[in-house]
Parts: sequence; structure tokens; C-alpha cells
Amino acid sequence: MATTSHQHQPTPERFFNVMHAFQQTEALKSAIELELFTAIAEGNVTSAEIAKRCAAADRGVRILCDFLVIQGFLTKEGESYGLAPDSAVFLDRHSPAYVGGAVEFLLAPRVLECHAHLTEAVRKGGTALGEGNLEAENPVWVKFARAMMPLMYMPAQVMAAELRKGGEVCKVLDVAAGHGIFGISVAQLNPSAQIYASDWKNVLEVAKQNAEAMGVGDRHHLIPGSAFESDFGGGYDLVLITNFLHHFDVPSCTTFLRKVRASMNPGGRAAIVELVPNSDRVTPPTAAAFSMIMLTTTPAGDAYTFTEIESMSKDAGFSRVELAPAQIGLDRLVIAYR
Amino acid sequence: MATTSHQHQPTPERFFNVMHAFQQTEALKSAIELELFTAIAEGNVTSAEIAKRCAAADRGVRILCDFLVIQGFLTKEGESYGLAPDSAVFLDRHSPAYVGGAVEFLLAPRVLECHAHLTEAVRKGGTALGEGNLEAENPVWVKFARAMMPLMYMPAQVMAAELRKGGEVCKVLDVAAGHGIFGISVAQLNPSAQIYASDWKNVLEVAKQNAEAMGVGDRHHLIPGSAFESDFGGGYDLVLITNFLHHFDVPSCTTFLRKVRASMNPGGRAAIVELVPNSDRVTPPTAAAFSMIMLTTTPAGDAYTFTEIESMSKDAGFSRVELAPAQIGLDRLVIAYR
Repeated sequence: MATTSHQHQPTPERFFNVMHAFQQTEALKSAIELELFTAIAEGNVTSAEIAKRCAAADRGVRILCDFLVIQGFLTKEGESYGLAPDSAVFLDRHSPAYVGGAVEFLLAPRVLECHAHLTEAVRKGGTALGEGNLEAENPVWVKFARAMMPLMYMPAQVMAAELRKGGEVCKVLDVAAGHGIFGISVAQLNPSAQIYASDWKNVLEVAKQNAEAMGVGDRHHLIPGSAFESDFGGGYDLVLITNFLHHFDVPSCTTFLRKVRASMNPGGRAAIVELVPNSDRVTPPTAAAFSMIMLTTTPAGDAYTFTEIESMSKDAGFSRVELAPAQIGLDRLVIAYR
Repeated sequence: MATTSHQHQPTPERFFNVMHAFQQTEALKSAIELELFTAIAEGNVTSAEIAKRCAAADRGVRILCDFLVIQGFLTKEGESYGLAPDSAVFLDRHSPAYVGGAVEFLLAPRVLECHAHLTEAVRKGGTALGEGNLEAENPVWVKFARAMMPLMYMPAQVMAAELRKGGEVCKVLDVAAGHGIFGISVAQLNPSAQIYASDWKNVLEVAKQNAEAMGVGDRHHLIPGSAFESDFGGGYDLVLITNFLHHFDVPSCTTFLRKVRASMNPGGRAAIVELVPNSDRVTPPTAAAFSMIMLTTTPAGDAYTFTEIESMSKDAGFSRVELAPAQIGLDRLVIAYR
């Protein structure tokens, strides 16, 4: 071991840090549970003040806050902590865009159990646990619908505005509607639009509640059951397929898109909203890494590239497929024209 | 919602990614279990080749490899994967510096259980589970001693070389020796040095085996028991206190350092090896984040700044304390002069 070479020695630092990456998740979860971000938003800025507000120990809060500074959620000036801009918007319970509740879905026990069997999933090429998250009427999707709405509110607004540029729509199908916010947002921007929301019966109750709360309940209709098996009817100007295709393999997606196309009016559009990695499958990081979640929680789902979505859409009979320039939250919008 | 402002809209991307940070840990753990890095080192570069070598599914391997590219462990050119330089050194089972076994300690069930109770630890200001990792004769330290040696081999060599600059040593105390590699490295660079290794009896068996395997067994002596209670004897030129102080609070560290100083020759040095954050406690990230591990796994331990280590050393009677410039792996070396 040359004593002069240690400045350039290889380092196991990445290994060490990634071995502990799970602590980032736990720290964020704990901070949300303790309402730490909310405490800071309320004006508590030293560890002692925050500790008092959160009914926690000064030392524990100091270490957690420093950790959250390292991860970019907080700022630190001297002994005072502050909220990073995104934390102020999304993690303060008093903020209308508060997303802390998404923990309930993102870290649901079933999801964690799927991830804990990653090695088996890699060996098998799909979730180690049966159908993963995809069982019929799986209550995790009710959790999803309730927990993810705040996270999807702004993206849904952006998507609806982007689609509105292509003209007003009258009849809209919202596939795997979940919280319903994508269809609801379209209804808000298209005053005569009638929205038909498809999802499991238990999930649609959440969508219906949201549609009523947001003033479009009278234009919001339900199609309960599997999206693959339900009768969608026809005459749609617009079909919203948001964060749905990634759960299935290419043949299933193609079959499904063919069913969708058959339900559409001439001139109709399918709006496919997905985390879309580039063709290299490793950029951009958030979209590309999403593939891992599909490996552990679905039998054969994936994060599809634009080329793959284009190809399955064309195989399903769509004439033209384009990638909209706007970022829809973490997603992209692909528009397939009948 | 202004449709023109979405380019600058706040983003929950950090929230979303940190909610999933635990997957980084699981992906790395699975890749080690599957010997994926070793497979690539052996010349398997496509997902099909790697899948065959790892007895896994092509699709599972492709998704895992892409994920590891995103995390910086692998490279990707077209459809071919390669090892990032640090992965080649530390994660290929055929490499002498292979550290994959460290998973056994870093992700030991007791450690994970401690971390899973983070919210309680923050409320309490220390581990939620009794003494955390600090019970007497805790078998986790045998695991530590066996699993962490490869990770500490190079840092120990660097430390021994750095200390050798200060002159040859004859009698050396190695506190909480664990795998023993710090004392062994000093023995290798100081041909007449006698090493006295202190640790729990069960742990010292590992240190002894390593000392014998590395040719210094005849100069390696054991002091079994608690470092706070054992009789160290006296006449030490050098006392190694490696990754030990962070488990305890400041008064305990000061008391311990006083005991150490009393065992030393005039002119003797204490070599304190620690993850040392800057005074802001949030940089550098790896050292600063280490504080979180101490919060969850010890009653009152911490990652101490140089100022804190200097202060406790001086309170214990040391005359001069300096921070050596060299990086000792992820650690820094603080030398306290009697």
C-alpha cells in the first residue's frame, strides 16, 4: 500500500452511502409523522423550538434536521433551520399542495413487502408476490386514490391545459381514474365535457367524492370493474390513460390500446401520461428508476420509452403519436391520435 | 393554475425520490447477493449473459442493472454494462478489497430494527431499543469484526503510515479492536511493536485470527471486556481509538480519554479515528449523516466535530490535539498528544 497514493485511492463511499440510503426514506417519513416541516413553517426554527412543537427531544430533532439539510429538504443558517422551497410547498401540512399523505401509498406494507423480495423478483423477472399490486379490488388502490391526489393535482392541471390546446372535448374516458383528478381537471377546463371514470368499484368511490367536492359531480360518471374487461361504450373525444400502461407488458398494453381506440370518435385523442425514460433507459434518473418499482410490484410492467409507447400505439391502430413538450409533474404526456 | 408557469412550478421530485431511496439499498444488496458485479467482472456484459451467470431473468437483470447505472455503480454503453471503477475494486468477489460482506453488519436485523424506530428515537433523543447496539458481548460486534475488515483494510494502512511519520512505537493499545486491522497495520509498520487489543471476548477471537493470518500473532495480545472497565495496564506509546467515541456522550468520552491518557507514556499519542463532520454539522455529507446512525443505534452517541473531540481530549488532560490532513477512508485522524 503506497502511502503517497491515498489521495487517489478508490473509495467505498458510494457503497457505504447506498447501504444507508434507506435511512433517507425513514428520515423523511419520520419528519412527516412528527410534523417537523409544519413546525418550521409555523416559525419554530431552532432545534429546541422545533422539539417543543413536535413533542420530541432536542438532540433527536437536531440530528434529524441536520440529516434533512444534507438531503436538501431543509436549509441551515447558524443554528436556525428553514424549509427548502419545495418542502414549503409540499411538506407543510398547512399548504394546499401538502403531499405528506402519499406516504400511505408509497410506503404501504404491501409495497414494502414487494420491494423486500427484490432478489426473487430479479430471478423471476417480475414481482415475487403473486400479482404484486395488481389484484382486483386491491385496497392498496383505494389508498393510492386517497393518498396521491395532492401529489397529482398540479400535474393534472398542467395536463388538462396542454390537452385543451388541441380543442374542446365533449366525451372523455378516464381509465384507472383513481383519485379522478385527471378527469376532473379536464372537466374543469371543458365546460360541456362528460367524464366517464373507469376503475375498481371501491376506488371509484374516492373519485366520485373528489368530483363532487370539486364541482363537477354532475358530469362525472362511473364504469366500475377491470379496465381490460369493462364495457367502455363509445364516442369518446379524449381518453385519459394516466400512469396505467406501466403496470402491464407490451402485448397487454397493445391489446388495451386497441380497445381504447375502438371506443373513440374519429379525430379523438388518447392522452398517455407516464414516467418516460429516454431510450438509454438510465436517464432521466427519476423516470428511469421507476422501472425498478414495476419490477418489484407487478408481474411484467415497466417504465416505457417513447419509442415503445409509439410502437404499441401504432400496433393498436393509432395513426400518429407525439410526445408533448411539457413535463406533467414527474410524468410526460404522449398523445396518440386515432 | 397558470398554464405558462409550469416550467418553474415547484416539484415534489425530491420527495418522490427520497420516498424510494430505500430501493437503492435493496438494489445494492440484491446485486451483491446475486453476484452481479462479479458476473460483470468475469466478462458477462449484456443482461442476457449476466442473467445466465446469476441464474436470474433477463428482464429482472436488465432493470436492476439500469438502476445500478443510475446510482453510479455500473456504466452502460449501448446494451453492455460495465463496472464503475469503485465497483470493480470493492464489489467484485474476486477483488482482494471486496466489501460485499459488510452487508451482514451494516444491514444486520438489529440495526434495521433500530432504524425502523426512528420516530421514537427522535422523540427520545436516542435509540428506541434499550442500549441499541451497545449491549455487552452483543454478537452484532462479532458480525462487525468479520464483515467490516475488508472495508477497513485500506484505511487502516493509511492510518498506520500517517502515524509512523511521528516515530516508531513499541507498546500499542488498540481500543475496541473489532477485526483488529488497525492494530495489525501498526504492527506491520513498526516491527518491534506489541499490540494490546481490547474488545469483548467474543469479538477478540476475530482480531486474534486476523493477527495470526497476517503474520503478527506473536505480537498481538488480548484484553477482553468493556473498554470502560478493563485494566489496560500502562506504558503505551500509542493508543488507537478507532470508530469508538461516536457511540457515547461527551462526558463518557471524556472519562474514557482520561483513562487512556493515564495508561500512556510521556510523549505518547492517542489516535482517534472518526467520521468527523464540520462545525456546521451538515458537511461533508457522509460524515455528517453518520450522526443519524448513532441516533438510532446508541443511547447518546454522535458524530463529533473536531472542536468537540479537541475539547473532550483537553478536558481529559491531553496537551495538544491535531487533525491530520489525510482522509482515512471515510474517517479522519485526530491525534491527541499526552
